[in-house]
Amino acid sequence: MKRIAILGSTGSIGRSTLSVAESYPERFQIVALAAGSNLEAAFEQALRWKPLVISMAAEADADALGTRLKKSGHGGIEVVHGAAGTVRVATHPEVDFVVSAIVGVAGLGATYEAVRAGKVVGLANKECLVAAGELITAEARRQGKPLLPIDSEHNAVHQCLRGGRMEEVERIWLTASGGPFLNTPHAEFDSITVEQALNHPTWKMGRRITIDSATLMNKGFEVIEACRLFHMPAAKVEVIVHPQSTIHSMVEFIDGSILAQFSVTDMRLPILYALTYPERIQSDMRFRVSDLRHLDFCPPDLKKFPCLRLAYEAVEAGGAKTVAINAADEVAVAAFLEGTIRFDDIPHVIEEVLSATNSGRLESIATVLEADAEARRYAQERVAGLQKSVKNKTGMPVTSLV
Amino acid sequence: MKRIAILGSTGSIGRSTLSVAESYPERFQIVALAAGSNLEAAFEQALRWKPLVISMAAEADADALGTRLKKSGHGGIEVVHGAAGTVRVATHPEVDFVVSAIVGVAGLGATYEAVRAGKVVGLANKECLVAAGELITAEARRQGKPLLPIDSEHNAVHQCLRGGRMEEVERIWLTASGGPFLNTPHAEFDSITVEQALNHPTWKMGRRITIDSATLMNKGFEVIEACRLFHMPAAKVEVIVHPQSTIHSMVEFIDGSILAQFSVTDMRLPILYALTYPERIQSDMRFRVSDLRHLDFCPPDLKKFPCLRLAYEAVEAGGAKTVAINAADEVAVAAFLEGTIRFDDIPHVIEEVLSATNSGRLESIATVLEADAEARRYAQERVAGLQKSVKNKTGMPVTSLV
Repeated sequence: MKRIAILGSTGSIGRSTLSVAESYPERFQIVALAAGSNLEAAFEQALRWKPLVISMAAEADADALGTRLKKSGHGGIEVVHGAAGTVRVATHPEVDFVVSAIVGVAGLGATYEAVRAGKVVGLANKECLVAAGELITAEARRQGKPLLPIDSEHNAVHQCLRGGRMEEVERIWLTASGGPFLNTPHAEFDSITVEQALNHPTWKMGRRITIDSATLMNKGFEVIEACRLFHMPAAKVEVIVHPQSTIHSMVEFIDGSILAQFSVTDMRLPILYALTYPERIQSDMRFRVSDLRHLDFCPPDLKKFPCLRLAYEAVEAGGAKTVAINAADEVAVAAFLEGTIRFDDIPHVIEEVLSATNSGRLESIATVLEADAEARRYAQERVAGLQKSVKNKTGMPVTSLV
Repeated sequence: MKRIAILGSTGSIGRSTLSVAESYPERFQIVALAAGSNLEAAFEQALRWKPLVISMAAEADADALGTRLKKSGHGGIEVVHGAAGTVRVATHPEVDFVVSAIVGVAGLGATYEAVRAGKVVGLANKECLVAAGELITAEARRQGKPLLPIDSEHNAVHQCLRGGRMEEVERIWLTASGGPFLNTPHAEFDSITVEQALNHPTWKMGRRITIDSATLMNKGFEVIEACRLFHMPAAKVEVIVHPQSTIHSMVEFIDGSILAQFSVTDMRLPILYALTYPERIQSDMRFRVSDLRHLDFCPPDLKKFPCLRLAYEAVEAGGAKTVAINAADEVAVAAFLEGTIRFDDIPHVIEEVLSATNSGRLESIATVLEADAEARRYAQERVAGLQKSVKNKTGMPVTSLV
């Protein structure tokens, strides 16, 4: 029986993890949950899973949850809150496996503590590798515990890497859907609307990651993640556009063999893989190979999608630069979604923040959070300086007011 | 230093193996060679590689080779001949790894003896698995030594299988180019000429295997080989047509993940893989992933290509049936190449021979060879009965004379 903690239990990955656990009650036990501010969902999860401990972001929510649980006869469940509460969930002595799925830098501290506590960690939080990857992977190595990627690309790479030893890897190939603007002329990028950018061709995801997919920033983050997770130099991590997103990623070995992984596009599959690794168990998530028809590929256009180039520059420099690229992107995407800046302003904001950031080494999660806050402040300034576009409420192209 | 014997050194796979050995002189030593009747090539190989022993098919050729070697100051090389000579090469005490690449049932005995002698064997000979697979794989298991496939499909499967344990395999997917008649209407199959059938779209190969690719019999043999090599029931080995032959094969795991292997279409790659397994070493056989553009797939048409269906029937019955399917096909293909029967007669001959064959268990290589001879006799009879078509020397469609 594997005893699981979920950081971010009411989010998309958290719910998918619970769905996997539901399918294999003889294998997985949910013993600790960290929710955010969705009190109703947290209460239902607590009733359904009866964890030893559950955490809410805010103290008031934790109090309310505790009261409701007591009333319903589940007063034995420990209710905690805040950053310390998340750490309590991540490091609970009864936990074997921690699913790290809190969005943003909020998940960093607890994930790092889970690794430090010798837990096996399944990573769905991007910031753990993009912003704090050097620290977290170093700690996992010290602990001799695997970090298992819970996203389709790195999970695919992890699977393909089983075909050889790490020193036999020539290159990692991450596939990219290319996003909704793969075939949009570059000249039209200045008039891309929020509505157009939120219309991702293959995956249904949150708003920020959908915009990140449209700018290819998300693929850039994945390049950084791959470098950290698999200890590869940036020159050995490449991106190829594959609009069907059927093949999730590939590994090229030094002998010239390439292994590729594909499956249905269902996040429960990488979750199941991580939860059962090194075993595989039967699932009903079948890709019908006999239905395969066409797979298309093309190289990414770095001129149209400068975010991808910026990610390479950030990971080559390392340290605070990869903290800054994540922070700057989050601020820039939020500004685009609010109609404050144009779609093609996003890479400009990021580039300016990166230029202003020193690539200093990060000594601790606290340093990461400081660098993150600083990059955000500077990104906000840049956004303010760029307030030259407004969102057109009709969904028509954004008009520059400058 | 790996010490290698090659059965079939002057053939295509033999020469490719020597080319691989040439590229890595610090890793591979050629210590034993079994050639056929190409005296000149055998002499040159002996001079170049200075093996401990070399075998020729015929005694006269062995004598001539021995004389020439003595004259050129290489009288120390042991020269042997015939079936016993091939066995001497395959079981030489100084040999670690045997490349089995003699075409046809002639390679069976020596390959079996190599396995019995505890050698690691790289299999490029189809008959070892199609006709005698049950015996040879059982012996390899007894010896605890791997049988490593040297052909692009099974080599790809072998690589993909590293992504999990054997009990985690849901299905093996062999890719098929579909051959030159993938898009030819079934109604035109009775008028396919030898010239048309010899025009394979992706691989340059010998005449029989090229015809076998056009009938999909070759893919059928590969289904049988996969069943034997990977201990899979026929129901778990499927074929998917992939005209570009980029992906060499795939493995579907029980969790729903699929791994696929691809590489340049160069036989030196599976040879290198087998010779270095479980290691991989650097090669210059690079597939340019960034040049990937389109991969197409479709299910095979068993009505147009009944040979594939017959292979499933043969391997499900096992024993002498898989000996018979190989023997019958060899006779039928030869008759087609001579213009004695039509292209669409090939599956008829095979089907009749299969029906007349009992699926008795095979106790020894001698039994295999007896079953082979019997199937050939019967196939010749069927061909004689079918002599109703003649080859049109102008290369125009074959005309039925009945």
